[in-house]
Order: sequence, then structure tokens, then C-alpha cells
Amino acid sequence: MLQDRIRLPALLDKVMSPAEAALLIRDGMTVGMSGFTRAGDAKAVPLALAERAATEPFGITLITGASLGNGIDEVLTRSHVLKRRLPFQSDRVLRAALNRGEVMFIDQHLSETVELLRSRQMGPIDVAVVEATAITREGGIIPTTSVGNSATFAILAEKVIIELNIGQPAELEGLHDIYIPTRRPHREPIPVVAPDSRVGLPFIPIDPAKIAAIVVTERQDSSAETTAPDAETQAIAGHLIEFLSHEVRKGRLTNQLAPLQAGIGSIANAVLHGLIDSPFHDLTMYSEVLQDSTFELFDAGKLAFASGSSITLSAACQARVMPELRNYKSRLVLRPQEVSNHPEVLRRLGVIAINTALECDIYGNVNSTHVGGTHMMNGIGGSGDFARNAYMGIFVTKSLAKDGAISRIVPMVPHVDHNEHDVDVVVTENGLADLRGLAPRERAEVIIANCTHPSYRELAADYYRRAVRDHGGQTPHLLAEAYSWHLRQEATGSMLPAAE
Amino acid sequence: MLQDRIRLPALLDKVMSPAEAALLIRDGMTVGMSGFTRAGDAKAVPLALAERAATEPFGITLITGASLGNGIDEVLTRSHVLKRRLPFQSDRVLRAALNRGEVMFIDQHLSETVELLRSRQMGPIDVAVVEATAITREGGIIPTTSVGNSATFAILAEKVIIELNIGQPAELEGLHDIYIPTRRPHREPIPVVAPDSRVGLPFIPIDPAKIAAIVVTERQDSSAETTAPDAETQAIAGHLIEFLSHEVRKGRLTNQLAPLQAGIGSIANAVLHGLIDSPFHDLTMYSEVLQDSTFELFDAGKLAFASGSSITLSAACQARVMPELRNYKSRLVLRPQEVSNHPEVLRRLGVIAINTALECDIYGNVNSTHVGGTHMMNGIGGSGDFARNAYMGIFVTKSLAKDGAISRIVPMVPHVDHNEHDVDVVVTENGLADLRGLAPRERAEVIIANCTHPSYRELAADYYRRAVRDHGGQTPHLLAEAYSWHLRQEATGSMLPAAE
Repeated sequence: MLQDRIRLPALLDKVMSPAEAALLIRDGMTVGMSGFTRAGDAKAVPLALAERAATEPFGITLITGASLGNGIDEVLTRSHVLKRRLPFQSDRVLRAALNRGEVMFIDQHLSETVELLRSRQMGPIDVAVVEATAITREGGIIPTTSVGNSATFAILAEKVIIELNIGQPAELEGLHDIYIPTRRPHREPIPVVAPDSRVGLPFIPIDPAKIAAIVVTERQDSSAETTAPDAETQAIAGHLIEFLSHEVRKGRLTNQLAPLQAGIGSIANAVLHGLIDSPFHDLTMYSEVLQDSTFELFDAGKLAFASGSSITLSAACQARVMPELRNYKSRLVLRPQEVSNHPEVLRRLGVIAINTALECDIYGNVNSTHVGGTHMMNGIGGSGDFARNAYMGIFVTKSLAKDGAISRIVPMVPHVDHNEHDVDVVVTENGLADLRGLAPRERAEVIIANCTHPSYRELAADYYRRAVRDHGGQTPHLLAEAYSWHLRQEATGSMLPAAE
Repeated sequence: MLQDRIRLPALLDKVMSPAEAALLIRDGMTVGMSGFTRAGDAKAVPLALAERAATEPFGITLITGASLGNGIDEVLTRSHVLKRRLPFQSDRVLRAALNRGEVMFIDQHLSETVELLRSRQMGPIDVAVVEATAITREGGIIPTTSVGNSATFAILAEKVIIELNIGQPAELEGLHDIYIPTRRPHREPIPVVAPDSRVGLPFIPIDPAKIAAIVVTERQDSSAETTAPDAETQAIAGHLIEFLSHEVRKGRLTNQLAPLQAGIGSIANAVLHGLIDSPFHDLTMYSEVLQDSTFELFDAGKLAFASGSSITLSAACQARVMPELRNYKSRLVLRPQEVSNHPEVLRRLGVIAINTALECDIYGNVNSTHVGGTHMMNGIGGSGDFARNAYMGIFVTKSLAKDGAISRIVPMVPHVDHNEHDVDVVVTENGLADLRGLAPRERAEVIIANCTHPSYRELAADYYRRAVRDHGGQTPHLLAEAYSWHLRQEATGSMLPAAE
């Protein structure tokens, strides 16, 4: 019964087709849509927009929580609806378009987007499109599998379109904790003091008069593409677990560790998976995306509580977990991404942050985003929010890519997302570099020795030695050849010099 | 009377000479000393250490708040006492030594040092040396012109040496607000909700049994070296004030603006000085260093309150303000640098952060520290704490240096302290680039057009055009010539090509 999900009777009149609802969005508008790492995205209205563009060309600025599923970014790119996009994406077709300069992409720390909107340094939001599990009697929106930026979009938007997804389990209700920071200059501390703090409402409170359309859908979230752990990712997990065990032995951590954050991707997933067989217990997560590994850790009895902004699962895990959601619910909370990623809360809790580097240089500066320094992959996402404010900022990467043609440890990264100040630990399958309290020259020695693949180690050591000898400085470099590895790879296909 | 300043009678026995006190510091120790931007530094014990090293070679790790005055870093470097140094310095002799790799310098965000010490990821602190105005009846330490990291040093150290500076005005008592975050995992929100919040104690609470020595001094703080505003710095101030006025007209700010932070240096000082004749009023500062301009703004009736971690003044301003301190005291507070620079508080207050760039690239990445990408100038200081968490992160620089041989706007910075994500506005004497909500290609166009000096503008535009045409991407670059300007300057003395 639709009335079970639309509990404010006056709103039943607002139910309409995606095409009708999409007519509220017009050329030049800024649209805020739900969706965070493929979870809880608006699924029907964006596709209707793309369809309309076939006969009526128009363009919008699209702001979301993070990446979308269901091919939405692809379809909106192909239909040329997308003119500006922020703050994150991970779509192959959109990526190509923004790298051609056809779509303006603004890559932002995920905690910051709504601050800029709220202070009117960006925006205004003309229309918000938010996927909902249900609408309360007061017109409050109960999100689905993500919160992302949906709450602030709905609160700030002039008009709100709700995609009521009856395919999303009703048990999602009660999972969310919607807290919006109070207005400056009278802003109060955010009262989250532990991963399981509940400080807000279980729904997004808005004036129901703003709800201009309700579209009923039942399309599923796109499932996560997962890669099974391999020898390298397992080795990375092993090094990290050994390191954390060492920290416990030193008395700096207990076997509960500290609240964990892990980025998206196969390495972070393998690391979390590796915790199943670790000596650690009663773990907590204060993260942004809750992935398969969260539920594996619950099932293994290792995890006490997990806080995130979305639940993004593989198809198999989705099929297993969603029907059993009630069994996990008391141990889960989904928050707005500005709270899950908030510097205030992260610094307070003292999170161990594990994120993937695209490449890392010998001094521990990390490129997370730009292939070759120029071409956007996905975006910085929350990695900066977490690494900067963490108790410990850990970056993981395999030491090689493309069958050894690319070294992920390079002399100098051609794009810096996280600089030396925020990178405490670097881990590859070769080993771990504990950089805490080290000066750049010391960092270089330990990164080259522990993290570089043997096939590049002497090459890196040689660069470093000559930089020290010929140029010196706090952070020795040879600017004339700092990017020689990247240029060689561009020219020959490999960062390795041709065999003599 | 010494009893007025040492109010716990049992401690009078601990008074000794600097040389005797310095004997508590032995080879291999980690020493935490007071001092933040030349204010409130320990002045006698470090000099006694250097003297002892002439006959008895030994080395220490020295951690301070920020930079020291009185030639202390120079003397400790020359005497080879300094082996490791963090988190900031600004001394010519030390700078040369660390760039030769003789002293290991760890450049840190100023808010983070004590977090690392408290969680034992660095340290332990063997001895703290803290300058004090007085010692309370309970053995509490009343700091002098800075708080810096002194509170946590004294709390964590095994032994504490106090430099009781009877040359510092007794009226400093009551100026300080010592708040230490509670221990994880039970850390509470920091209750600072406005620049004038007082949330702690007016002294550093420690067990008086740890006070191992008291040294009486009366040496003055080194005065700040100030440069009078010139045509360029005045132009920068003018652009910025016009921009802030525009923000007020747009309704995004009121004439009170937002709490202001300004880094050290002649440009930031000129900008604050420029506010005297602006339409803004009832301003507040939430900054780290309070400089001459703070008191000029008080005297002009423009400033309602200023929070910082130190007071660093020119000789003239020192002579004028210090005897009149009681007239300013109710409008001033000095905090530990982890509170003045805390991400939690900065994000809550919504600070306008104005810091100086050493150079900035066409995409708005900022190098604050490394000359030529390799040689340390001073350190990142608090600029990262502020820029990342600010309502608005503004970077200022003159567009030229060395009579035009160096452009401060370059194709790619060879060291990144603040990346595009944290740099909202760039200002040179040529103009202002408002980068909020812009994609990198848009950022490049406005930075090149507005900020680059005319003598480099076409050169920068040509690089950018060719990068777009020949390479493309989200952030177009030509890696083979990204540092060609820096290399040309190294080779020929100028970034400009030889005239044809």
C-alpha cells in the first residue's frame, strides 16, 4: 500500500510519472540529487531528464553526495544534460568527457560541499531529487541506503522531488541520524562523541509544501564491483595488521584499535577482510561507505558498531544482508556525509583512516586522483577529510601496475592530493613505511627500502642519492627529471628504462 | 619580590642558574620548549645548553610551539646541540643546516604536534622548558606572551624547568585560556563557540613536584621584523577589501565579516592594516599570531575581540602596548595552539583565513614552504590548519620577486602545501581570483588573467593553451616543461626567456 510509505495523505496527489516530475528541472538549473557511492541514488528522474534532452537540449549543474549507480552519470553525459558536476564521480563516460573539458568537474572534499551551499558560496539549489524509503506524517523524508548530501539539498532546495523506492526495504527506516550543524555565527559543537552516538532525527525534516512531485520506483541500487583479495592485497593487509599489532604491543592502541575508516576499493576491502582473522575485537567503524567487509566483520563477531553515510554492497552481499537488515540495525547508523566526514568529529574520535593511493612519491606525497598528473580518475572523495584529521592516516597501494610497466612509488607525484603532513603510513605488498615523526630525507629512505617494488628500488634510490648530492635541501629533488618516469612511460609504455 | 611571582613557597628552593638547570637536559633527550613566533620563548636555558656543548658535545630533539627569537635556533644549531627540530622554524642558520641535511626538520601542521605526543606516536618529552609570568599557589604555570604547545609539554614532561621572566609584564596574568582536550576515546567537544569563549584555566595545571628548576630571567621577546606597506601590498589589501565588500553586498557576509585569521608577514599585515579604513566594523580575530595590526585595529575602534596563541609585536608596538596591556586585556585571549588552530573550532566558527603563498600555480595549488621545491624556508605553520577548515581560504602573494626574475604564479608548483581543494581565493597586486565553485580549467583562466604579472601573463597563457591542446585532462599540464620556469631561473637567474 502506497499509504504505508506516503503517510501524509495530502502528498498522495503529488505522485506522478518520472517524465512529469523531470519537467520541474529546466535549463541552467542547479540540481542536488541523492546518491553516495552507488547507494540511494535517484534513479528515475535523471533518466527521464536524459530522455527529454533528446528532443529539447538543455543543461544542468548536478551535485550529488558522491558517485552514482545505474549508469546515471553516463546517460546524463551522453545526452549532454551534464554541464557541471560535483563533488565526485566514478563513471567511465563522464570521466572521458570531463577530461576532454566538456563537463566542468569540481573535485571537492566530501565534507565541504554543503558548507559552500549553505553559506551561498555556491548554489542555490533549484531542485532536489531525493530517494526515499517513506515520507512521514509530517512530510519528513526517510532516506534509503545513503544519506550523503540529501538532507541539506532538500532543506535548501526551492522544490523537492521524491523518488519513493518501494523496492528498498522498509526496515531502512530508523537507520538514519540526520543532524544539521546550527547556523553560524551561533554554531554549536556537533555532539557526536562515539561511532554509535545518535544526535539527530531519523528523517530529513522539510516543509512538505516544498514537495513538488513524488515518483514511485522500485529499481535496485547498483551493486558494488568487488575484486577478491589476491596475493598482493593480502600481503598489504598482512603488513598493516602486523603494524597495528605492534602498536598494541607498544601500548599505543588496545585490541579494540580506534574507529576505523576504509576507502572504496579492493585493497581497503582486503585489509578489512583481513581483520576477521586478527587478534583485534570489539572494533568500531566511523567511515563513509559501509561495504561487504563491514557485514563480514559483524558476522565474524569482530565489529561492535559501524557508522557511515552509505551502504554499498556486492550483489551477493546485498541479497544476503538486505532481507536480514533488522538483525544489523541496532549496530548501524547512516549520517549526512558532512557528519561522517566532519573534521570536528574525526579529530575527536581519533580515526584510523585507510585509503588507496593512485601513486605515492618517495617523500610520501600522495596522488589519489590524476592519472599522469592530468587525467581525473574519480575524485578525492573523503580521503582528505579522513587523512588530515585522523589519528593515523594510512595509504595503501600495490607497488606496481600494468604488469610492472608502472611503479606506484615515483620520484615526485605530478598531482598532490595529500601531502607529507597528512600521510603517516604507506603500505604496499613489499612492506610498510611508518613515517611518523620522520623528516623528508628519512621518509625517502624508508619508503624506498620498504615500499618500492624491487624492480624499481635501485632506480628510486639512485634518483634520491643524486638529488641529495647534486641539489640537497629539506626535500631533495632534481626538477629536470622529477617526472622522467612518467614521461618515459608516456613515450615507451614503461617507467623502466630500456634494457641495455 | 620573587615571592609575588613564585607563590608556592616550596618552589623558591628550586631557583638556580641557567647552567645548573640546563644540566637536567642530557644527550638524546626530547625537549619541549615554549615559544611561538618569537613570543614567550625560553631564553636562558637554551643558551646555557649551547654553552655547555662547547666542552661536552651532545644532541637533542627540540620541539617548540613555532619559531623562536633571541637567536636561539641559531645558537643551538651552531653548537650542534640541535639534531631534530619540529614543528616550525624561521632561522637563517638553522634553515641552512636543515637544508644541508644536518638537522632533521619535521614540518607539521601546528595543531597536530601535541596530538602526536599525547598519543605517544612521538616523544616522550623528557624535559619541558616553559617561560612563565608567575607560578600560582598550586604550582600552576602562568605563561607569558605565547601559549603555543607549552601546556601539553609541561603536562607530559617528566621534568619541568620554568624560566620565570620578571621582565614580562605581570598584567599578562589572566590573558590565557588553557584548555586541553579530554582523553580519547572519551573526548568531549571543545566548547569554544566564539572568538571570545573562555573555556579553560588561566594557568597550566601541573603537579608542582615535576618542577625541577626555576631560572629567573628578564630578557625581552625578540621584536617582530615588520615591513611597511608598499604599493603592491596596499594593492593586494585593496583587492581583498573590495572583494569582501562585494561579498557583503551579495548578502553572504555582514559588515562584521567573519572571524579573521592572518598569517605572519608584510602582506597579511598590510591587509589587516587596510581594514582600518574599510567599511567593516565590530570585527573579531580567531588567529594564531596577534601582530601590530591587531592593536592598530583595536585603537581604530574596528576590532571587538582577538583570540590567538601569541602576541608578536614590533619594537615600537611592544613599547606602546605592553605598558597599556590592561586596557586591551578584556578583548584578548591566548590559547594553546591546538585550540587556536583546531579543525573543530575553525570549521565551527567559519574563519576567513589569509595566508601568504611562496608561489601558486595556474590551478591554485600553493607552495608555502619549499624554495625551488627543495629548500625549506620556514614551514607550513598553521596555514594548513586554517586554509583547510576556513569558511574561505585566501592566499596572497606579490606576483613577482627579485625584480621580476621570478614569477610567483607558475605553471606547476614544485611542492604542494595547499592543493586546489583548499585554495578559494588568490590575490596578487594585479588582481583577485575567486576560485569558488570553479573547475581547474576555469581556475587557470581566472588566475592567469587576474593574478599573473603582465610580464609573465602571455607565457603562462601559452603554457596553459598548449597543455589543453596537446595533453588535455581535468588539469592539463605538460610534464616535460611544467618546471621549465624554475629550471630556467636556476640556469639563467630569471624565469623569463632571454629576449630574442
